[in-house]
Amino acid sequence: MASEQPKEVPTDPAIASSSGPAAEDPSQPSKKGAKKAEAKAKKEAEKARKAAEREAAAAASSSAASEDLAKDNYGEVSKDKKIEASTVPLREIGEEHIGKSIKVRAWIQNSRAQGAKMVFVELREEGNWTVQGVVAANSEGKPVSKQMVKWIGSLKLESFVSVEATVQKPLEPVKSCKVSGYELHLTKMYLVAPAPEMLGLGLAAASRAVGKLDDEEQTEGVEGLSITEGTPVASLATHLNNPAMHKRAPISQAIADIRIAVEDLFCEYLRARRFKKFHPPSLIGAASEGGANVFKLPYFEKEAYLAQSPQFYKQFEIAGGRKRVYCVGPVFRAENSNTPRHMTEFIGLDLEMEIEEHYHEVMHMLEGVLLHIFKGLAENYREEIELIRSVYPSEEFLLPEPGKEVRLTFAEGQALLRSEGPPEFANVRDDEDMSTPQEKALGALIRKKYNTDFYVLDKFPVTARPFYAMPDPENPEVTNAYDFMMRGQEILSGGQRLHLPAELEKTIRSKGLDPNQPGIKEYVDVFRSVGVPPHGGGGIGLDRVVAWYLNLPSVQLVCDYPRTPKRLSP
Amino acid sequence: MASEQPKEVPTDPAIASSSGPAAEDPSQPSKKGAKKAEAKAKKEAEKARKAAEREAAAAASSSAASEDLAKDNYGEVSKDKKIEASTVPLREIGEEHIGKSIKVRAWIQNSRAQGAKMVFVELREEGNWTVQGVVAANSEGKPVSKQMVKWIGSLKLESFVSVEATVQKPLEPVKSCKVSGYELHLTKMYLVAPAPEMLGLGLAAASRAVGKLDDEEQTEGVEGLSITEGTPVASLATHLNNPAMHKRAPISQAIADIRIAVEDLFCEYLRARRFKKFHPPSLIGAASEGGANVFKLPYFEKEAYLAQSPQFYKQFEIAGGRKRVYCVGPVFRAENSNTPRHMTEFIGLDLEMEIEEHYHEVMHMLEGVLLHIFKGLAENYREEIELIRSVYPSEEFLLPEPGKEVRLTFAEGQALLRSEGPPEFANVRDDEDMSTPQEKALGALIRKKYNTDFYVLDKFPVTARPFYAMPDPENPEVTNAYDFMMRGQEILSGGQRLHLPAELEKTIRSKGLDPNQPGIKEYVDVFRSVGVPPHGGGGIGLDRVVAWYLNLPSVQLVCDYPRTPKRLSP
Repeated sequence: MASEQPKEVPTDPAIASSSGPAAEDPSQPSKKGAKKAEAKAKKEAEKARKAAEREAAAAASSSAASEDLAKDNYGEVSKDKKIEASTVPLREIGEEHIGKSIKVRAWIQNSRAQGAKMVFVELREEGNWTVQGVVAANSEGKPVSKQMVKWIGSLKLESFVSVEATVQKPLEPVKSCKVSGYELHLTKMYLVAPAPEMLGLGLAAASRAVGKLDDEEQTEGVEGLSITEGTPVASLATHLNNPAMHKRAPISQAIADIRIAVEDLFCEYLRARRFKKFHPPSLIGAASEGGANVFKLPYFEKEAYLAQSPQFYKQFEIAGGRKRVYCVGPVFRAENSNTPRHMTEFIGLDLEMEIEEHYHEVMHMLEGVLLHIFKGLAENYREEIELIRSVYPSEEFLLPEPGKEVRLTFAEGQALLRSEGPPEFANVRDDEDMSTPQEKALGALIRKKYNTDFYVLDKFPVTARPFYAMPDPENPEVTNAYDFMMRGQEILSGGQRLHLPAELEKTIRSKGLDPNQPGIKEYVDVFRSVGVPPHGGGGIGLDRVVAWYLNLPSVQLVCDYPRTPKRLSP
Repeated sequence: MASEQPKEVPTDPAIASSSGPAAEDPSQPSKKGAKKAEAKAKKEAEKARKAAEREAAAAASSSAASEDLAKDNYGEVSKDKKIEASTVPLREIGEEHIGKSIKVRAWIQNSRAQGAKMVFVELREEGNWTVQGVVAANSEGKPVSKQMVKWIGSLKLESFVSVEATVQKPLEPVKSCKVSGYELHLTKMYLVAPAPEMLGLGLAAASRAVGKLDDEEQTEGVEGLSITEGTPVASLATHLNNPAMHKRAPISQAIADIRIAVEDLFCEYLRARRFKKFHPPSLIGAASEGGANVFKLPYFEKEAYLAQSPQFYKQFEIAGGRKRVYCVGPVFRAENSNTPRHMTEFIGLDLEMEIEEHYHEVMHMLEGVLLHIFKGLAENYREEIELIRSVYPSEEFLLPEPGKEVRLTFAEGQALLRSEGPPEFANVRDDEDMSTPQEKALGALIRKKYNTDFYVLDKFPVTARPFYAMPDPENPEVTNAYDFMMRGQEILSGGQRLHLPAELEKTIRSKGLDPNQPGIKEYVDVFRSVGVPPHGGGGIGLDRVVAWYLNLPSVQLVCDYPRTPKRLSP
């Protein structure tokens, strides 16, 4: 029979049930009374008993109390320990809640006892929303026993609790909490999920800059970390090996929120310009771009490879009648590079579009989407950026003035390096790709000269580009292809692609490849099979955009679950 | 030097350049005149010459024309063949354009000559926007020569052209085109990308229902295709082997647009409810869920696996302090199943959320997001749905009345099958998972009884669920886990997960597994390392939702690039 369940859901015993009955405080004092001196001291006993009764009535928490009047208001969560008040997320607490009872579900971030009758508890919800909770033994209104106070004070940090509390104005703002204008006077607290005796990584260390980056090579870029003496600093490996605590740190949540924003801003900008989303495959039948650095796996009776980019598939979409497409998904590189820039799996933000007149239409679209992203971050994520800067200091990311985007040709970049760069780059060539140190040196020169951290290098030499790059018709040594740079590091590669099969075949042959070899043939076949308009595009590394925008020491601090030659877990 | 390029981009020779000069018509007639009868017939000759001149002046296209006055207005695109008019997408043509000159870039979908002086050309843009173009020899206004008409008529179907045209009202609506209220009087046409002599798959066949599905097994579900005799019908394999033409068909674009909408509606609904996006990894260090049906690959000195689901990572996000998360990305199954329901790689729409009181909070959220998707499709994709139905007929997808969602327990479903289902299901058991035929039979029973194609099966038996499923505390034989069904086929699996490490370890052992074995240990460790609140979620197969909503014969018609045991390309 179909049940027509109300939207108000019942309490499920699977949540209430826990590893046993509510923990009773073993230190609960035993009854005191006037038992021994039966006859003689009857009067005194009576007096003492009455005094005890008065005390118990006045304060259930009294050490003389024979009964814990608050015993149903704390302990491990169970079926009959309920909170009737409505849940109010910490970020929504306002004046209208003052004096009202609310329900909060949160982690215990910190707690501090003040004598035996009072405990301060810092409660945390998603996104670093913290509030000060206070619990003091009293018997007015809802009773709070001394046992209850003691139990709350004994809970392990990072335990998850369900709380009933009255919202109050604190005497002065609680500086240590994001919710500083209100505090919670706790009336009930139930333990939903206990934390272990020891945390592998505490919140304090998780909230600080990482110390050692995994490898020797990864130490580049760590300069500028302010590590206070005496405070524990965890290595990147320790962070990643403790994913739950690493992620709970406010800085991690801020980085993750900015990462989401970058992806959303990318999609939003393109959707508004009639780009259509699609999903390229990860499994492909042949190593499309030469076979180097590609993961290979047994696939039933055949072999499969993991796609190094959605390049061919973006172009198939254009051939298939789409004017503009984009995709967001993982790409794979079997490259044994242990640097703060490389991962073996990362999220690519890719687009491809028809060109009407000139490939700079594409370049301008890519500039447009990135400037939209930077604008969106600066406008809506100031708080997160400042929080991240308090841990990883960085200079403001400089943008070109609108309409004054900085675009150098590759040759102009090399000329600048030769004339004004460090002496070791006095002889860099226009027909050889730039090294990472060259890129960084050029980035510094451009920052000084043009006051921007974001710029384009256009017209890369043919030797530095794959076979599908459209050569410049006026200079066959270079291509209609570009890289985009942030703080001197590449975050995007793109350009115009060859769209006529005869020219495509010619270029493939000139690179020493065969247009009919596996992986390439099926690509060329698409252009042989239909007329395909001129088109171009680009691919952006999501984690790099975030890392270099924030000047973080590694893309591994951005990726949700980084994969490197040495790391496949968690 | 940094160039400050204007947003108006120049024409790039890389687009203008093509495989040669504009094709001249070899059949151009030779001059006729009065050459032979020089003396005697001078008068007649003069008369004829004047007549020819008049004709040439009146119509440059005349067979007597000595010169092709329109020669710059057609041919292969080149640097100096330019169209100054502004581009107007076909979907935007309106009354304001009548009599005006516009530029259009489109594929030639069809062409038909009317005598030697006139050709009708159907032009198509993305999304099946088609318009009728007309070109007729004339010398008024912008000259159109007979040669130009002939050249246009000779272009291969599916060539991509750039066109200048004057917008006119047709005498009567052009029924064969989506833009029926306007037609284009062509004044220039340049060939941007020629189609080949022969198409591997023509648009007519690409627009029809597929014939043979790849395998014997795949023929289930093909009933109901209306295949007109005499019209070519291509197999699914032919479609997929010709991706460009397969995708150009209006039905493919409609299916792809609906697929995008499903994903967007999913994300939109969850974002509005404070779900945070994240990206789980594809590469994992151990086969997490038992090791069956998982792709394995060499990974530097180790081995890696491709994730079968983002399950563990969604839970890590909850452990990491997020209240609600979702993700969209590929998952992999090394299952040798050649059916219309299975692919080896597919896009999963996944969510996970904290539970406050009862796991039905999650179930209701999943119902909510799916109903939001169905509502969005019915409201905004009526035209696409009708187009798809004209090729793949289907009955309207029935939804429950709001507030009357149909939710059966697994045991109730089995009881219904036993009592009212086909005789072969008279003895189905409550402690054994349903087979696909059982599911379909139950779907038919529920449609008849409750008038819905969308319903939930709750409380699956423990035997049919993985180790992380939360048992029902009131009946340890079943779990707090459910499947969602569309037209009798599963599209979602989900439920509450175990969140306390002791209970998790116990269940893992009861399934014959070791909580400390690779792949499982690092999962359990997260719950050991911090307190994690109760939580649950579900995973939706994107392609199945689209396929079963539209009653398509295979998920391979939905996926952009389907992967099956037999297909890894294109």
